[in-house]
Amino acid sequence: ILGPMTPLERKRLDYHPEIPSLFKNGVFQIAPAKAPHPDLRSLFPRTMDQKAFRLVPGKPHFAPPRRVGVLFSGGPAAGGHNVIAALCDGVGELIGFLNGADGLVRDEWKKLSPDVVAPYRNQGGFDLIGTGRTKIETPEQLKAAQETCRKHQLDGLVIIGGDDSNTNAAVLAEYFLEEHCSTRVIGVPKTIDGDLRSAEIELSFGFDSATKTYAEIIGNIARDAGSARKYYHFIKLMGRSASHITLECALATQPNVALIGEEGLTLPQIVHKLVDVIERRAAAGKNYGVILIPEGLAEFIPNLEGPRDPHGNLQVSQIETDQLLIGEVKKKLKLDKWFPQGHFLGYEGRCCLPTNFDAKYAYVLGCLAAMAIRDRLTGLICSVQHLRKSVEQWQCTLVPIVGLMHFEKRLGKPKPVIAKTLVDLKGEPFTSFVKKRGEWEVQDAYRHPGPIQFFGGAELTDTVPLTL
Amino acid sequence: ILGPMTPLERKRLDYHPEIPSLFKNGVFQIAPAKAPHPDLRSLFPRTMDQKAFRLVPGKPHFAPPRRVGVLFSGGPAAGGHNVIAALCDGVGELIGFLNGADGLVRDEWKKLSPDVVAPYRNQGGFDLIGTGRTKIETPEQLKAAQETCRKHQLDGLVIIGGDDSNTNAAVLAEYFLEEHCSTRVIGVPKTIDGDLRSAEIELSFGFDSATKTYAEIIGNIARDAGSARKYYHFIKLMGRSASHITLECALATQPNVALIGEEGLTLPQIVHKLVDVIERRAAAGKNYGVILIPEGLAEFIPNLEGPRDPHGNLQVSQIETDQLLIGEVKKKLKLDKWFPQGHFLGYEGRCCLPTNFDAKYAYVLGCLAAMAIRDRLTGLICSVQHLRKSVEQWQCTLVPIVGLMHFEKRLGKPKPVIAKTLVDLKGEPFTSFVKKRGEWEVQDAYRHPGPIQFFGGAELTDTVPLTL
Repeated sequence: ILGPMTPLERKRLDYHPEIPSLFKNGVFQIAPAKAPHPDLRSLFPRTMDQKAFRLVPGKPHFAPPRRVGVLFSGGPAAGGHNVIAALCDGVGELIGFLNGADGLVRDEWKKLSPDVVAPYRNQGGFDLIGTGRTKIETPEQLKAAQETCRKHQLDGLVIIGGDDSNTNAAVLAEYFLEEHCSTRVIGVPKTIDGDLRSAEIELSFGFDSATKTYAEIIGNIARDAGSARKYYHFIKLMGRSASHITLECALATQPNVALIGEEGLTLPQIVHKLVDVIERRAAAGKNYGVILIPEGLAEFIPNLEGPRDPHGNLQVSQIETDQLLIGEVKKKLKLDKWFPQGHFLGYEGRCCLPTNFDAKYAYVLGCLAAMAIRDRLTGLICSVQHLRKSVEQWQCTLVPIVGLMHFEKRLGKPKPVIAKTLVDLKGEPFTSFVKKRGEWEVQDAYRHPGPIQFFGGAELTDTVPLTL
Repeated sequence: ILGPMTPLERKRLDYHPEIPSLFKNGVFQIAPAKAPHPDLRSLFPRTMDQKAFRLVPGKPHFAPPRRVGVLFSGGPAAGGHNVIAALCDGVGELIGFLNGADGLVRDEWKKLSPDVVAPYRNQGGFDLIGTGRTKIETPEQLKAAQETCRKHQLDGLVIIGGDDSNTNAAVLAEYFLEEHCSTRVIGVPKTIDGDLRSAEIELSFGFDSATKTYAEIIGNIARDAGSARKYYHFIKLMGRSASHITLECALATQPNVALIGEEGLTLPQIVHKLVDVIERRAAAGKNYGVILIPEGLAEFIPNLEGPRDPHGNLQVSQIETDQLLIGEVKKKLKLDKWFPQGHFLGYEGRCCLPTNFDAKYAYVLGCLAAMAIRDRLTGLICSVQHLRKSVEQWQCTLVPIVGLMHFEKRLGKPKPVIAKTLVDLKGEPFTSFVKKRGEWEVQDAYRHPGPIQFFGGAELTDTVPLTL
């Protein structure tokens, strides 16, 4: 049971996300798709030669899907409820599986009628149906999932998740075809990490809201640094592997130093850099500062040891990178007084109220998923391009998930998964950061974006991520 | 040098804080003042019998003060720049002493012309002139402060600070009278902690903005708790000694448990309470939760040991209360899986953009300080009452600081200081919290206030603290 809604939550219920008019008068047209890795053929024989489908003007020729299931997978991201809202608006009956893929396997679900969905429109979190991290991989799990879909006579299943969850969507799509189960499986790209990017996927939903919330907090801490003039704030930012969140927040707040894991510095190089900046600032009379550290930094540091998860990934959230760096810097620093403060920003931004950008983007992704199921498509992920432009110009495409996969070693065995996209060291966001960051080191250039605003003009309420 | 202003910061420059019309057509009338502790007479012979002064309708008969100095003391709080803006608007020339009382002692200052002040109106932080924690106590410091004031021919000195800083303002006021220095000293109540409360001082500025920022973050974390359904978030909230911040945030966000230091529970009692709630939630299928912990909790726990500062205060920020409680709970808990996450919220909220409430309140405090100096008053602190009502109904009074003092043992010696006000266990805010908190323990009633809004209607932009 939810607590009473706050005034801002109530006001956000009145927000109507804009959608491209093609959702009223458009059809899917076959579009070229990237050729998948040839070794995937044995695993995905039925979905291997999928095409992409682009929404273009035309007269729709299928009826809306009658029954659709939806589930969240992985960490929450702002906008998730709007994917559900769009599905609720676009299909006959919608059911939500509880607590991620577990709900599908165990047949635990909730009917998502318009009444039930109404108070969640434009709201943060995944709490309407919860989420989970279970993957459907064993024969037993696959069979149970299929039985649930058959029992509910689902025309489609929408999986809202990150790289691993969309990989799982492709596995389910293939399996359902093999088993002659008529449920179509469509993936929706979700992750605050921003690492589900490619030529096909510009961005996942949730990144904008999370980074704007972190930028608010970093801006406040930076203003505190320049006011109290006493503390060095080491701010670690959530985001497994890739440093997209840190890069976005750095561009938004202009800290003294922002480490980008993808640069591949060794630990001594990083410590040398920090000590150099801190000592030059001290020489300028400034014994305070703001340093951003991506959570995934540890993955890029050669020879760093730490605990690994069952998939063989370094458990970077278990390595206190901020404390590690504080300790190493302290050893080298020739200052009498130095007051470091560690921070970790993560849970603060995954479930905030979605920005207008994420509210619209997630709603459009949901519309696209509903339309894909209407057209009996499967094994595809929703892609919206030209996100920097006005909503009417957003290009909506369904892209074969197998085309996004490569092989990664997991527990010593090659496993087909969607490639995580790292910060491109030749891309515009990073190179423009590199041009400016020298100026931020000693001469304070902190920016304070302030809290996300939902009213007061489009220049406050409808901005897009800087790294887009 | 500041970075370029963000769109929201620029928009906030256009905000004009409302002030009571008595500032245009009012005069001070003598009002009854609380009798100071009799033992203070030997320390404050010249300011001991001060009256209070209340702003009432009438025709002003003094000219605005020609030259005034201002300084920040202690931790930053949102609204500080608006006190300066009001002084800038209300006096002939304003100078700001740099980095707190150090600037006064060392004669380090900055001219605060309207041009210099302009970009700081309604902005967060204390970075225009910085702040510091130095107290002016030794004969050398007192003499140096006096010399600085004489050199600059200051009519008045405004000290913006918390309990200790306003105590210091009273000491300076007395000393300047003794030394026939004509500089008047006026205190302005600032602290996010909310412990500078009394019959005379309803609230200090900064509390509203800080608690609304923390409530935004706590609400986001609570939504994450209910979405991921996996983590117990132990959120420690800044605030030396008193639990006002925690109480305010608890009323705003309705966490599962909020500890209030003033209840005086022992460590085993606290741990028992937490274990009980966690186990009852587990029985209801809920292995997640949100627990608020006041930073000052450690001060109220009998027999807890920890480092003390030079004033003899327990350094509560050095005791990781959240980690301590997580460890103790873990020992008693009979659960296979339990994932606690510690958080500390403090620096995130001291320097945020001030809410409309703090922007107005701080501006009015500055107006009141300017008028006090105009009328050649000294040793007084600015007090605004009826803050829950409309600005026009705010009652503006100058209250003798000595009347707020009591004796506290510091390093074994009794020292006159302004009494810190703890949460009143018989007051309405606490009793209404006690009535509701049982319901929040198992049945989730989280509220998500969302980010501070500056546009979109008074119900979003102009609320007052719930504990007022």
